[in-house]
Amino acid sequence: MADLYGGVEAGGTKFNCIIASGPQDIRAEARIPTTTPAETLTQVIRWFGASGLPIRALGIASFGPLDLRRDSPTYGYITTTPKPGWRNTALVKPLQDALGVPVAFDTDVNGAALGEGVWGAARGLHTFLYLTIGTGIGGGAVVNGQLLHGLTHPEMGHIRLPHDLQADPYPGACPFHGDCFEGLASGPTLWARWQQDPATLPPDHPAWRLEVRYIALALVNYICVLSPQRIILGGGVMDSHFLFPRIRAEVQQLLNGYIAHEALGAGIDRYIVPPELGARAGVLGAVALAMQAAQAS
Amino acid sequence: MADLYGGVEAGGTKFNCIIASGPQDIRAEARIPTTTPAETLTQVIRWFGASGLPIRALGIASFGPLDLRRDSPTYGYITTTPKPGWRNTALVKPLQDALGVPVAFDTDVNGAALGEGVWGAARGLHTFLYLTIGTGIGGGAVVNGQLLHGLTHPEMGHIRLPHDLQADPYPGACPFHGDCFEGLASGPTLWARWQQDPATLPPDHPAWRLEVRYIALALVNYICVLSPQRIILGGGVMDSHFLFPRIRAEVQQLLNGYIAHEALGAGIDRYIVPPELGARAGVLGAVALAMQAAQAS
Repeated sequence: MADLYGGVEAGGTKFNCIIASGPQDIRAEARIPTTTPAETLTQVIRWFGASGLPIRALGIASFGPLDLRRDSPTYGYITTTPKPGWRNTALVKPLQDALGVPVAFDTDVNGAALGEGVWGAARGLHTFLYLTIGTGIGGGAVVNGQLLHGLTHPEMGHIRLPHDLQADPYPGACPFHGDCFEGLASGPTLWARWQQDPATLPPDHPAWRLEVRYIALALVNYICVLSPQRIILGGGVMDSHFLFPRIRAEVQQLLNGYIAHEALGAGIDRYIVPPELGARAGVLGAVALAMQAAQAS
Repeated sequence: MADLYGGVEAGGTKFNCIIASGPQDIRAEARIPTTTPAETLTQVIRWFGASGLPIRALGIASFGPLDLRRDSPTYGYITTTPKPGWRNTALVKPLQDALGVPVAFDTDVNGAALGEGVWGAARGLHTFLYLTIGTGIGGGAVVNGQLLHGLTHPEMGHIRLPHDLQADPYPGACPFHGDCFEGLASGPTLWARWQQDPATLPPDHPAWRLEVRYIALALVNYICVLSPQRIILGGGVMDSHFLFPRIRAEVQQLLNGYIAHEALGAGIDRYIVPPELGARAGVLGAVALAMQAAQAS
């Protein structure tokens, strides 16, 4: 019998919960709406208890920003989120106290990156990037086989990009930075710029030209800084799969042959790819975090 | 007696050579002009031979782009450089054949990052960035204690940044990307934009407002992607030390408090710093590379 792990993908609209040993062995799943911290965490705890399944460890892959510093008094907290009611909210301690198992804690995108590395599109690679483009934009990276944390954790959605105000007079929607990448290219930004549900925009709509441009500019910056072996693009916006070939072509055009590597030439179709774990990338990432925590404990 | 190592900092105008066990124990140094590969490499080999000092290993920290893939037929080469005569030039093999010691090979900025980590401004840190802003712009990073390589090596100078053409109509000087960071903010770009030696521009010249802006935008992007614990800024442009407080202030303004960490607040003076190894950061970085190679061999 394989050991079981709990995973919680803490998102702005729902908490996805899972009990599994991996993507081929999922024992239970639940979606719990994100309301108040007290209500949502109580329901999460109740669900794991009611499952009757013993877990060795729990992983939490959460929206952020997060405090990941073990020596900090607010370790395990969501910190400066603009989400109402969730600023400075403890996630780790209430779950650890209630469930009595080791609890791993990281960003949703670091979890997803780890999950894709263990079971998905980045198997066998040592340095890669997972990016989600949806309600928000965020990235998680594995470098030399380890999650990248550094000072805190990456905030890849908040890089600054060229913004041609003539081609796109939309000022950007990020409450902190205006026209950073997230402020220009998240799902809600598409809604706000075009006054229409982005899922209803046809593939030849001018919205996608701009969207491809911003995503490609961002990927070029990630490539120049991290030199990833592969980039995995997930999130709601990337469910429009016709974006992939356009993004690949624009990345090549922007790099203009400067970085001489087959992956950025003929191999580009295998370089910029969708997640293999699909909609479960986040919650299985939380399971991967739990497995790490169990090994370390 | 400490073991001695050879270091070669291969630059566009000169090859700096050193024999040392560390910054406190430098036995010999030389500057060899960068002319043709054959002539320059012959002089480097002759100098090490004539020194009469036995070295355990040699490190080469070179301008790039480089082929760092051990399994590649052109491993140890400078590849697509625009520098006349140096495209597709082997560096490792001629030096290894002539000197008969293990040879480590990496970018000049990865070498400098490693050197600052061993002896300089990044001692004790696990994740940090070294950036040079001079003839070119490049960055090297250590992540979780290891040099970041990934697919090839970072090309941090070639990220795309916001470029306000009204404030700065200069189109950018990068032959590959036009107005990437290097194309907007390198030393030669300052010359070209202001038709004046940048070293003679007074601190209140409008050139520096733009320069600070571009550097701060780039640092914000590196912070969002890599989350470094410290950023070390070297290179000829950064010899104008009055830039440091201005860059720090602009980085804080651009981040706008989004990343909650003391290092980006009250601690910013210790976060964005000059190299401690000064002008020897590159060549001592090559020595640090040599020490790694000797340990691995």
